[in-house]
Amino acid sequence: MKVQLVYERSFSYHKTVRPRDQHKREAIFEATVKLVSDVGFADVSVSKIAKEANVSPATIYVYYKNKEDLLISIFVEIHEQKASAAMKGFDETSPLKEMFRKIWNNSFKFISENRDHLQYHEQFRSSPYNDLVNSTEATNIMQPFLAALESGAKDKVIKRIDDDILVAFIFSAIPVLSSSSYKTKMTRKNIETAFEMAWDAIKL
Amino acid sequence: MKVQLVYERSFSYHKTVRPRDQHKREAIFEATVKLVSDVGFADVSVSKIAKEANVSPATIYVYYKNKEDLLISIFVEIHEQKASAAMKGFDETSPLKEMFRKIWNNSFKFISENRDHLQYHEQFRSSPYNDLVNSTEATNIMQPFLAALESGAKDKVIKRIDDDILVAFIFSAIPVLSSSSYKTKMTRKNIETAFEMAWDAIKL
Repeated sequence: MKVQLVYERSFSYHKTVRPRDQHKREAIFEATVKLVSDVGFADVSVSKIAKEANVSPATIYVYYKNKEDLLISIFVEIHEQKASAAMKGFDETSPLKEMFRKIWNNSFKFISENRDHLQYHEQFRSSPYNDLVNSTEATNIMQPFLAALESGAKDKVIKRIDDDILVAFIFSAIPVLSSSSYKTKMTRKNIETAFEMAWDAIKL
Repeated sequence: MKVQLVYERSFSYHKTVRPRDQHKREAIFEATVKLVSDVGFADVSVSKIAKEANVSPATIYVYYKNKEDLLISIFVEIHEQKASAAMKGFDETSPLKEMFRKIWNNSFKFISENRDHLQYHEQFRSSPYNDLVNSTEATNIMQPFLAALESGAKDKVIKRIDDDILVAFIFSAIPVLSSSSYKTKMTRKNIETAFEMAWDAIKL
């Protein structure tokens, strides 16, 4: 129960900051993502983040209760950014495969263009902090997509399999394929080919 | 060129240690994997590793030239362990799908049972150290599998697509599905279902 409270409290901070503080909050966000991406979670401190963001440590405590609150809030924010980017231009009236193509391409674009965010997200996921959040908000954003999976299964277009497994097969190749250390250049044609493979994995 | 030398030199250490030193080397290996998995790359030092492994820092320098050499060598070792585990019991005379099922199940088992190793591997991959290695050795171990992909494409069983993209679709769901933070329990039936999805992604 405490866990859920941590999440809701830290999340509520985002909603209540005044517009003129938004620049500082963004600087703190970017500094944290950059530091974690460069040196990992263990080596990040509020004072290092403050220095990188060019704000005082006291300013950070205006927005976040402590380092844990900061790290969790930023994860939640990235998680939601990712979900919102994926769902951009979602049209529930388009054919299922086209709907998925759109979400897949959106995700590929977001992940390619936000490698630091992804790295933060992945490191957070495998850190002990991950046990302290639940991702209801992002799941809400993805809800129309999950409903489409469900209706696809009902119409026998998509395999009737646990959502989690479908989602893993739709999205998990993207971070690998879009990585800068990946040998094969992801041309438009290769991106299209990769989407077709994801579709073949989930279609009936 | 220098890069390749770093890799070959550090790798050659593994081959030349005398059996009685093997325990110490294993202790150093396990300590490094554990520390990186707990605190990330940035916060790891030779003195911390020595303490965790219960050896003196001088002992570490018997096996490794410096921290970089140690971190690279351990990555190479994990990379090869992963490849060897995947190829265990590989039988090139079995039907292609069964051959792949075996490799997929082997990989699932290895990754499920060696989360720390995987985490080290992933953190290394997204670290600056990754530019210093080439993974020829592991690719050699996987060679019969890559040859099977090629012959599958020739026989029109598998899509004729860049190896890298095929490999991404075969393996990239595994770390997600086998993660301890994953919600859906990977029963034998779910593991089987997931393999079928990977197969559907790559088959023609």
